[in-house]
Amino acid sequence: MKIAIDAMGGDNAPKAIVEGAMKAVTLFSDIEITLYGKEPLIKEYLTNQERISIVHTDTVIEATDEPVRAVRRKKDASMVLMANAVKEGEADACISAGNTGALMTAGLFVVGRIEGIERPALAPTLPTIEGNGFLMLDVGANADAKPEQLLQYAMMGSIYANKVRGIEKPRVGLLNVGTEEKKGNELTKAAYQLLKGSDLHFIGNVEARDLLDGIADVVVTDGFTGNVALKTIEGTALSVFKMLKTALTSNLQSKLAAAVLKPKLKVIKGKLDYSEYGGAGLFGLKAPVIKAHGSSDPNAVYNAIRQAREMVSNEVTGTIRRSVEKSADN
Amino acid sequence: MKIAIDAMGGDNAPKAIVEGAMKAVTLFSDIEITLYGKEPLIKEYLTNQERISIVHTDTVIEATDEPVRAVRRKKDASMVLMANAVKEGEADACISAGNTGALMTAGLFVVGRIEGIERPALAPTLPTIEGNGFLMLDVGANADAKPEQLLQYAMMGSIYANKVRGIEKPRVGLLNVGTEEKKGNELTKAAYQLLKGSDLHFIGNVEARDLLDGIADVVVTDGFTGNVALKTIEGTALSVFKMLKTALTSNLQSKLAAAVLKPKLKVIKGKLDYSEYGGAGLFGLKAPVIKAHGSSDPNAVYNAIRQAREMVSNEVTGTIRRSVEKSADN
Repeated sequence: MKIAIDAMGGDNAPKAIVEGAMKAVTLFSDIEITLYGKEPLIKEYLTNQERISIVHTDTVIEATDEPVRAVRRKKDASMVLMANAVKEGEADACISAGNTGALMTAGLFVVGRIEGIERPALAPTLPTIEGNGFLMLDVGANADAKPEQLLQYAMMGSIYANKVRGIEKPRVGLLNVGTEEKKGNELTKAAYQLLKGSDLHFIGNVEARDLLDGIADVVVTDGFTGNVALKTIEGTALSVFKMLKTALTSNLQSKLAAAVLKPKLKVIKGKLDYSEYGGAGLFGLKAPVIKAHGSSDPNAVYNAIRQAREMVSNEVTGTIRRSVEKSADN
Repeated sequence: MKIAIDAMGGDNAPKAIVEGAMKAVTLFSDIEITLYGKEPLIKEYLTNQERISIVHTDTVIEATDEPVRAVRRKKDASMVLMANAVKEGEADACISAGNTGALMTAGLFVVGRIEGIERPALAPTLPTIEGNGFLMLDVGANADAKPEQLLQYAMMGSIYANKVRGIEKPRVGLLNVGTEEKKGNELTKAAYQLLKGSDLHFIGNVEARDLLDGIADVVVTDGFTGNVALKTIEGTALSVFKMLKTALTSNLQSKLAAAVLKPKLKVIKGKLDYSEYGGAGLFGLKAPVIKAHGSSDPNAVYNAIRQAREMVSNEVTGTIRRSVEKSADN
């Protein structure tokens, strides 16, 4: 299995990317990795080149670049070359921790949509208290969505949760402002009916306050709402930790007590760190395209590679394709 | 000034309502309160009847009642009688901690909209780390919103922040998935242009992850997104505290350390408790209508009364009315 990786994407590139890739080839004997980026920089960290090759390019899409323009104009950027490798069949999946919008653009225009999928969806696995996590999609590939698209998101999310996470009948919830069937806006009211009529394991509307309790395995929503929910989770958790830090260092007594609790707090922070669950999959494309978090460390990169490997070996893309064909036949 | 209160609404009614009312009349010599509800139950807690009268009714709208039907059919419910008192000019403002949907219905159909306001908006003040809080609207009065409605929300929120919170030029932010002008869904893109062209102090798009940092004084959004953001803040904060509790009681050493930190944690929880900031105003109605949190204790009820008093004495409703008339003239 061949995995193409943008070595220049993310805050800690290329170091974290290279180190994550080396960890992955050590642990998975069935993968070969190609790193796209500045060869001299990559080689600074690449101490083991077994099953890791480099394709050199000097061009990089920056975090601040306007996505669509960057992908169109920087045709030899590391991210675009990586996507091209997938398109040309030279790689089975690709990963970048770089500019999210650019990766979505490259995914859509270079890798391409599965026929019948109206819109791809960005799908991270978010933390839950008990530690299993839940898949939320879409968190921003498309700001506006139609009811039929939410149904497709649910189908793709279910396939992923089943194939990669091993959940036999993934519970699908529709993010809404109340649990009753008639709650919500025009979009969720219509999507509810479609989901209810599908053969998915639809458990109804779910409320945002119950997400981290693990109320569903797959939560579907439009990209605007999903992005707001995702960033609200991040922001609130960070704010609470900031307040804790201030409180715990306010005097000597607190500092001593805090020292005892530090390892525990670290565990909690780790549980809330969703890079542990891999990157965010861009679902609905002709091959797995994975967005690793911008602040990915080597372990997060490794987790994204593991995730890409599982998506390929469990045929997530093929299953989505067949499922779309089947629903088109009906 | 006369304030009408539904004594039967909320988890702790009528005890918390009655006690909050008694605290308010003690501290504010310029208010008179009428409590609507079951007189024998109210009298159990009403130890000081100075400037507090009771209007007895046996009918109550339950939390589980379907809002529109309940308001239409239970014409002598405590909440409906309270709203009627405002309509008939017998009270200047009203407060309930009961069924939110029913209160919005009573507000809309009994108290009535200000002419020119398309839709009322539910506007709680949410916590920020530094403790000033920010106003978010709409959090659920209307699931779907038009750009013009978001502009009205911004205008109403600015007036409230100015008149009641004393902020000279309230910073208005548009909740969005990115800070750049062109980000977002169709609604936010159109609303951005309206806000930019208004005479409000519009600071542009704000992201959900920055809300608790106090990025804006007034955050406008459609009721669906606002409700999701609100419940995500609640849910995430609760989840972090649950995880903390588990971690802090996992062994003796942690328990001892936790005992030292308990008062600090309580302060943090208090900071995140938005009932401290009063209830959620239902803006755009002919008089202040305030939704106190369902779990309100006497202090939260007191804060809601204080808020109603400030809205009346600072003429929030009249200012909104004049502002709508002015914008209609232009």
